[in-house]
Amino acid sequence: MWLTGLPASGKKVLASVLATRLFKDGIEVYTLDSVKIRGSLSSDLGFSRNDRRENIRRAAELAAIMARSGLVVIAAFIAPYAEDRARARSVAENFHEIFLDMPLELCEARDKDDRYTRARKGYVSNFTGISAPYEVPDNPEVTLSLQEIDSGSACDILVEYVKKHFVNFT
Amino acid sequence: MWLTGLPASGKKVLASVLATRLFKDGIEVYTLDSVKIRGSLSSDLGFSRNDRRENIRRAAELAAIMARSGLVVIAAFIAPYAEDRARARSVAENFHEIFLDMPLELCEARDKDDRYTRARKGYVSNFTGISAPYEVPDNPEVTLSLQEIDSGSACDILVEYVKKHFVNFT
Repeated sequence: MWLTGLPASGKKVLASVLATRLFKDGIEVYTLDSVKIRGSLSSDLGFSRNDRRENIRRAAELAAIMARSGLVVIAAFIAPYAEDRARARSVAENFHEIFLDMPLELCEARDKDDRYTRARKGYVSNFTGISAPYEVPDNPEVTLSLQEIDSGSACDILVEYVKKHFVNFT
Repeated sequence: MWLTGLPASGKKVLASVLATRLFKDGIEVYTLDSVKIRGSLSSDLGFSRNDRRENIRRAAELAAIMARSGLVVIAAFIAPYAEDRARARSVAENFHEIFLDMPLELCEARDKDDRYTRARKGYVSNFTGISAPYEVPDNPEVTLSLQEIDSGSACDILVEYVKKHFVNFT
């Protein structure tokens, strides 16, 4: 389950809530996100186009290996380039792209970590949505319009989705 | 559980037999080895000193992440450099180095894949034991002298070891 969206679109929180819900229902699940990967597997990488490509490549390979162990893997990564997400899809056997659709202005308004503010001031370069592109998914399996539904409803949708599409657990 | 030893010392077979035994006892387990990693996560790497270091680094990070998901991870890698194994140890929370102690001559004699033959003829460079070093572990948690015990007994020892040292399962 690959959650993609702008910074502060709610990927990591949704991944965490979803994981907790699935776990309570007896589904073994593991979440991966940028913080976990960039401090370990991708500790040698930055945020250039090439480094982002390699970071997503490694995250996808990791997710695919973990999925083969029988876990439902929830990967929460901006993954702003369609090309990189397509490659991630090609690596995993059971890949589902979940697009967290939230306008830039809203993401910016709700960003508690002031990442957008720092990016606007130029303290951070290559920041997705400000100084680096986010390519909206063309054909994601699920689009969650987070302006229209709350995160609880979004989670409900994904719980049902996982139960339907990860056949080991139905 | 990090299994280290010369090429053809029996790492991968032992890992596989051990995984099957543990699985039958209800312990969730996953094996990682060079074939799995070099075709995916480390597909950009070769066999130079630097590339070997990076390959083992990624394998260790992967193993650590998978272990955090609750699996017992059995990693079967030559990992010929003590420095790389020490770094792998520092990454994982519950690291156990298992040294498969088997003389070079025996490994060479039992190598069905003729890797040693090709290395001796110079078709393969940087081959551990022939044209690249294998640094014998100084202080492994377990040393299995595979000249003295058969692989069934080796597996028995490791099954007991896992049950003792992976506390979630005892």
